[in-house]
Amino acid sequence: MNVQAAASARISARLAEFLSAARWEDIPSEVRHEAKRSLMNFFATSLGGCRDAAIETASAVLGRFAGSAAATVIGRCERSDLLNAAFLNAMSANVFDFDDTHARTIIHPTAPVAPALFALAESSRLSGRQLLLAFVLGVETECRLGNAISPGHYKRGWHITSTCGVFGAAAAVGSTLGLDGERMKWALGNASAQSSGLIETLGSMSKSISVGNAARNGLVSALLAERDFSGPDQPLEGARGFLRVTGEHPDFSCITQGLGEHWEILSNAYKPYPCGVVLNPVIEACLALYKNPQLSIAEVERIELVGHPLLRERTDRAQVKTGREAQVSAQHSVAVALLRGRAGLAEFSDECVADAALRSLGGKVGFVDDESYAVESARVTVHMRGSRSLSWFVDQARGSSARPLSDADLEGKLKDLAQYAASGCDPEPLIEAIWSLDRADDAGSLMPLAAGRR
Amino acid sequence: MNVQAAASARISARLAEFLSAARWEDIPSEVRHEAKRSLMNFFATSLGGCRDAAIETASAVLGRFAGSAAATVIGRCERSDLLNAAFLNAMSANVFDFDDTHARTIIHPTAPVAPALFALAESSRLSGRQLLLAFVLGVETECRLGNAISPGHYKRGWHITSTCGVFGAAAAVGSTLGLDGERMKWALGNASAQSSGLIETLGSMSKSISVGNAARNGLVSALLAERDFSGPDQPLEGARGFLRVTGEHPDFSCITQGLGEHWEILSNAYKPYPCGVVLNPVIEACLALYKNPQLSIAEVERIELVGHPLLRERTDRAQVKTGREAQVSAQHSVAVALLRGRAGLAEFSDECVADAALRSLGGKVGFVDDESYAVESARVTVHMRGSRSLSWFVDQARGSSARPLSDADLEGKLKDLAQYAASGCDPEPLIEAIWSLDRADDAGSLMPLAAGRR
Repeated sequence: MNVQAAASARISARLAEFLSAARWEDIPSEVRHEAKRSLMNFFATSLGGCRDAAIETASAVLGRFAGSAAATVIGRCERSDLLNAAFLNAMSANVFDFDDTHARTIIHPTAPVAPALFALAESSRLSGRQLLLAFVLGVETECRLGNAISPGHYKRGWHITSTCGVFGAAAAVGSTLGLDGERMKWALGNASAQSSGLIETLGSMSKSISVGNAARNGLVSALLAERDFSGPDQPLEGARGFLRVTGEHPDFSCITQGLGEHWEILSNAYKPYPCGVVLNPVIEACLALYKNPQLSIAEVERIELVGHPLLRERTDRAQVKTGREAQVSAQHSVAVALLRGRAGLAEFSDECVADAALRSLGGKVGFVDDESYAVESARVTVHMRGSRSLSWFVDQARGSSARPLSDADLEGKLKDLAQYAASGCDPEPLIEAIWSLDRADDAGSLMPLAAGRR
Repeated sequence: MNVQAAASARISARLAEFLSAARWEDIPSEVRHEAKRSLMNFFATSLGGCRDAAIETASAVLGRFAGSAAATVIGRCERSDLLNAAFLNAMSANVFDFDDTHARTIIHPTAPVAPALFALAESSRLSGRQLLLAFVLGVETECRLGNAISPGHYKRGWHITSTCGVFGAAAAVGSTLGLDGERMKWALGNASAQSSGLIETLGSMSKSISVGNAARNGLVSALLAERDFSGPDQPLEGARGFLRVTGEHPDFSCITQGLGEHWEILSNAYKPYPCGVVLNPVIEACLALYKNPQLSIAEVERIELVGHPLLRERTDRAQVKTGREAQVSAQHSVAVALLRGRAGLAEFSDECVADAALRSLGGKVGFVDDESYAVESARVTVHMRGSRSLSWFVDQARGSSARPLSDADLEGKLKDLAQYAASGCDPEPLIEAIWSLDRADDAGSLMPLAAGRR
């Protein structure tokens, strides 16, 4: 057996055995808490996205074929069958890319996993601890797969949230079903047959299909495995298995090394603004400058952004036409933060982008590359008439690993987003139910609190 | 623009415009007839596979979430919603790999496409000609995509029937919905987000999920596009689009060259036996030897197979334990054909494989590689006690392009397989409806004829 073969020996089986054997007592308290923070952020972004046109259309089209209305569609009044609800809730959580980010892989971990679990919890009784354990295991699974094939996988063109997410959902649901190691391996195998999603679809509605499918099909994968629907023996490490086919140089050790000791969910981060993360320090600086009474927008001559070259490379977009484009435009982000003092979903909508004043101010933005800056840092200097200028430096932006959003920030994000989409969902009971999920006998009882009221 | 960029310019748009503009009058008569032959073979293999454990389990699990029972599940008594019926009927058509084969890509073209169309036809009125046109276009789409990325795609580990099939189903359904070029391109884009399926899953039930999904998700892709659910501009040729991400060296010209002049369905072939095609001449020779009164099984000392080296490489499997393995075992195929004089699904079932007499006779099989043989040719020589031997040579096996199954053969295959799975489906009216489909006002009325009766 050569080195590569040795490294890959029984990867699927060993992961499946770990997932099958894991217990709530094995999960450290900071991991448990991070799981709840991830779920807080999930319900926030799903409530914010639930009225997007992609979700409206998918709900209408798929609703024609839906089975019994056993599950909540977050932020909406209609209910649907479990599979369809998992699909729609994953879509809404991720549609604005405002959901969580796993640092090493840029996977959005929660969108594929949580919707599958909560849909199941509405028809099969699960305790809050069962659900939280399963959620942690699902995130662990998808992020470890992502680690093994990053960065080549994404670079080749795979939408890693979707391609790895279906395994996360399968593992998570498999945990709640109490699958043994063999059946857990089959659940992963059934997921391997359904892993899909292309980077080419980003920026179009099609992207949301693969994210929705990750949740739906992961759920299907585990439900089939429970009934002895069998998969291959080596869905991950096999010669024609997931890791080798979709990874350029897979590192098999990432799948099993330190299982149960190191937890990937602790590398999860939450966005303060619905934008590319490199814009975080720029927006934070502009929001600070907005509060300065000496700022006079009418007198602005130019705005200088100093940052890591990635800032310019990823976000130098002067003439944006859609909210989607605005989310990765420094020009729009700077202008809207300086003019309106806000940077929420409303400030990155198609309607907002149509405001000519924003394009005018954004046209004054210039970039200065500085390799000495970290991507979490930026300086914004507003030059006004008469050689007056105001400047603000952000060393570690909010939302970075050094300055993660606080629990209160996440609650605030949920409240903001619940209001944004006007779902009528009352955020307070939902927030309380999320923080107390580990004490709930019936995790599914949380979901009606996230339903729409109008 | 470099050569590669020029070759790939507007590939998705040009294909979509062709699909959108194609009319029944454009389809040559031999293409129309081949479409009906493909459908005859489809209903045959679906009726044969409809009771396989994979379909039983999937029907039970997914049936819990099914919507209104608007569509027929072939060979079965339960009905299901359109999406689920498309999924199950694609599974049953392909589960034994007894379905059709596109020569250049080894795609099984009909399984992903026909189920999506027939499911739709049961709730939206389609004429037989609309359905046949759409079917031809779907097959054209998936096979052209397959041509562009073969052989690297399959070799890397992609189950090409599933990965390309979802585009075929989307294109076909898009045709029946009358999508314009823009929406047809979106249908292809929505399909690109859902293309999946790994070779590693072959031989396990998981394989059938990706085939079922190809039909289901292709249908979803087109239904969403109809409602303006938009996809990327270049789902096929884009830098992170399907062809470049899943193909090693995609040949973009395969997609658009000769569209409307050359028809891929004319390269479709149908299997006489539920086995790897390299076994066709061997089985045919053994069935001929079985009829020879001089054959005395008790006296057989050894059996010599002379054929192309691929015959040995693909099928030298002495000790098989399952029907699935037996389908690619020369030892089993030779033994069962010589002992029972038949080579249908029953002869490649788990029950049949358990017969010790077959393993004993199969143990006497030896291979002689001969590069001068085509894969459609083989010689089988049975050596018996006392230096007596019987030999049979097959130059072009039944089922090859030179000796395709006749229309009567295909009817016989459907009758055999309807009987095999004991669905109670009466084959005669179904056969008549398939041959007369181009004169039917309501293509959906064919489906109840394929339902199970017990």
